[in-house]
Amino acid sequence: MKNHQIVLAARPEGEPRPDHFRIVESDLPKPADGQVLVKTLWLSLDPYMRGRMSAAKSYARPVEIGDVMVGHTVGEVVESRSAALKAGDAVAGYWGWQEYALADGKQLTKVDASKAPLSAAIGVLGMPGMTAYTGLLTIGQPKAGETVVVAAASGPVGSVVGQIAKIKGCRAVGIAGGADKCRYLIEELGFDAAIDRRAPDLREQLKQACPKGIDVYFENVGGEVFDAVLPLLNDFARVPVCGIIAHYNDTELPPGPDKTPRLLRAILSKRLTMRGFIVWDFADQADAFRRDVAQWLKEGKIKYREDIVEGLEAAPAAFIGMLKGKNFGKLIVRVAR
Amino acid sequence: MKNHQIVLAARPEGEPRPDHFRIVESDLPKPADGQVLVKTLWLSLDPYMRGRMSAAKSYARPVEIGDVMVGHTVGEVVESRSAALKAGDAVAGYWGWQEYALADGKQLTKVDASKAPLSAAIGVLGMPGMTAYTGLLTIGQPKAGETVVVAAASGPVGSVVGQIAKIKGCRAVGIAGGADKCRYLIEELGFDAAIDRRAPDLREQLKQACPKGIDVYFENVGGEVFDAVLPLLNDFARVPVCGIIAHYNDTELPPGPDKTPRLLRAILSKRLTMRGFIVWDFADQADAFRRDVAQWLKEGKIKYREDIVEGLEAAPAAFIGMLKGKNFGKLIVRVAR
Repeated sequence: MKNHQIVLAARPEGEPRPDHFRIVESDLPKPADGQVLVKTLWLSLDPYMRGRMSAAKSYARPVEIGDVMVGHTVGEVVESRSAALKAGDAVAGYWGWQEYALADGKQLTKVDASKAPLSAAIGVLGMPGMTAYTGLLTIGQPKAGETVVVAAASGPVGSVVGQIAKIKGCRAVGIAGGADKCRYLIEELGFDAAIDRRAPDLREQLKQACPKGIDVYFENVGGEVFDAVLPLLNDFARVPVCGIIAHYNDTELPPGPDKTPRLLRAILSKRLTMRGFIVWDFADQADAFRRDVAQWLKEGKIKYREDIVEGLEAAPAAFIGMLKGKNFGKLIVRVAR
Repeated sequence: MKNHQIVLAARPEGEPRPDHFRIVESDLPKPADGQVLVKTLWLSLDPYMRGRMSAAKSYARPVEIGDVMVGHTVGEVVESRSAALKAGDAVAGYWGWQEYALADGKQLTKVDASKAPLSAAIGVLGMPGMTAYTGLLTIGQPKAGETVVVAAASGPVGSVVGQIAKIKGCRAVGIAGGADKCRYLIEELGFDAAIDRRAPDLREQLKQACPKGIDVYFENVGGEVFDAVLPLLNDFARVPVCGIIAHYNDTELPPGPDKTPRLLRAILSKRLTMRGFIVWDFADQADAFRRDVAQWLKEGKIKYREDIVEGLEAAPAAFIGMLKGKNFGKLIVRVAR
């Protein structure tokens, strides 16, 4: 039996290419005391990974050249030397882009397969769902009757943001790439309006969709979408800043003029709150998140969609495509059945 | 007896000029029931007035062409038809750039001349002081040992921000225009460091002055100062956005590149909070502000400096100079003795 791992082969400038990744084959490792050997079933692919491929300082350490790519994973314990786990247990953790991994038993979370499909633990019931829940409720503070706009709205974070906005009595407006995704937002997820981010009249459509302005803008994107949102923000609007996927592959700043003063002026004159966050800043809300979202899933108030690719070797191309918006739903890799 | 008023003659594009203002002479008006006639003693000149001269939508209505310029004022009741006030009472209000004015008695605040000089009611104990107090404490939330940076630091807002930061046990770093102002910040007000905003090595000096980074940046300025501050902000730093005087005379956006993505990336990766405010958003803190700052004045923990110009007719030139940083201390006009 051999293990396969995908490691960072080189740091991309701009868009990642397949040759920035490399597959490495090795023998299966043996767990030491307290460790388990896990077999990966599901690997989550998420935009933040682009940041980890760069050497730039951020909230987390970069992946070093030759290191296994980071990622949220679900798997099955194959061999356990941890008192807390036994072979056959389903667990979630952060062992990254590999078929097998050694993990400290204490760093893993048991997953109850009877409550939801295992893959939900890295999606709607995992980091993306909790990102949506904590950022929207804690920073966005949506009130009934307000308008909440979210971009990348058919993705695993945006789709939960919009559905929680509806649960809280808000008008939910999604921005997504293409007619299929927009139809899905309205027909499947119950958004009040959905706009194609590629529409030449994006600003005008957004204005039509938000007749009372925008009270909460959940920022996943940046770029032109942010430019379209800014003039529509109401006084005292809240902007949780969760991601700026439009800029992750930037190699330099966009051409001028410099719009920073316009943003500062809007923050001042509309008394906006912009606040960046990552999900771990709200780790103390994990229990509330799991309780609420599990309940909403059961009641059918939250739905989710997965975009599944097969096999670890497919991960690099799927990840590269995701940065261009090619996925439709939560992008996950079925590493093994 | 004649009244003199300064009205908005034309809307400036870019820097205001004297001919954007006009002096108007008229007869003294007679108070109607509930009104008082007040004689202006002190007129406050503040950067926000530049915004009111433009037609652009903001948090307050623009001054219309031909209207008296707005402004915070202190004066003496000359004639009263309000039950609450009598001739000779000292009052503060918002009757603007004029020697005499009619005012609704209920819109005026009595000022106790025995506690502080009357002019303090439009300075350290008035709107600028309260702006500093509310923005720093509510949004900035400085904690002992943290570093607070404020620009326009010798002005009526910045000087109080820095001194309250010291009272709260923080390191206070001021940025001001010129060596005299910087010396004043350190020698008179007790700032830990002061930096000339015109220094060619502003960024390097700021870095030296903030060896543990910046936890609170009280934004009065924008422009190059903001660019210098941004890389030094610590994780979870707070940025109360109070003003952007560097941009008030802008007629177009600055040349590129567009630095907005850099700002969004900093907000995200450092989990910054940027929040705009105006003092009236915190009107419920007026009592706490007056109590605390009056006490700190009495204890000598807060000092202030006034830059006095003589006569209403001197107001336009003084205001134009203030937008270029020519004042040193709170700029006020002695309209009458």
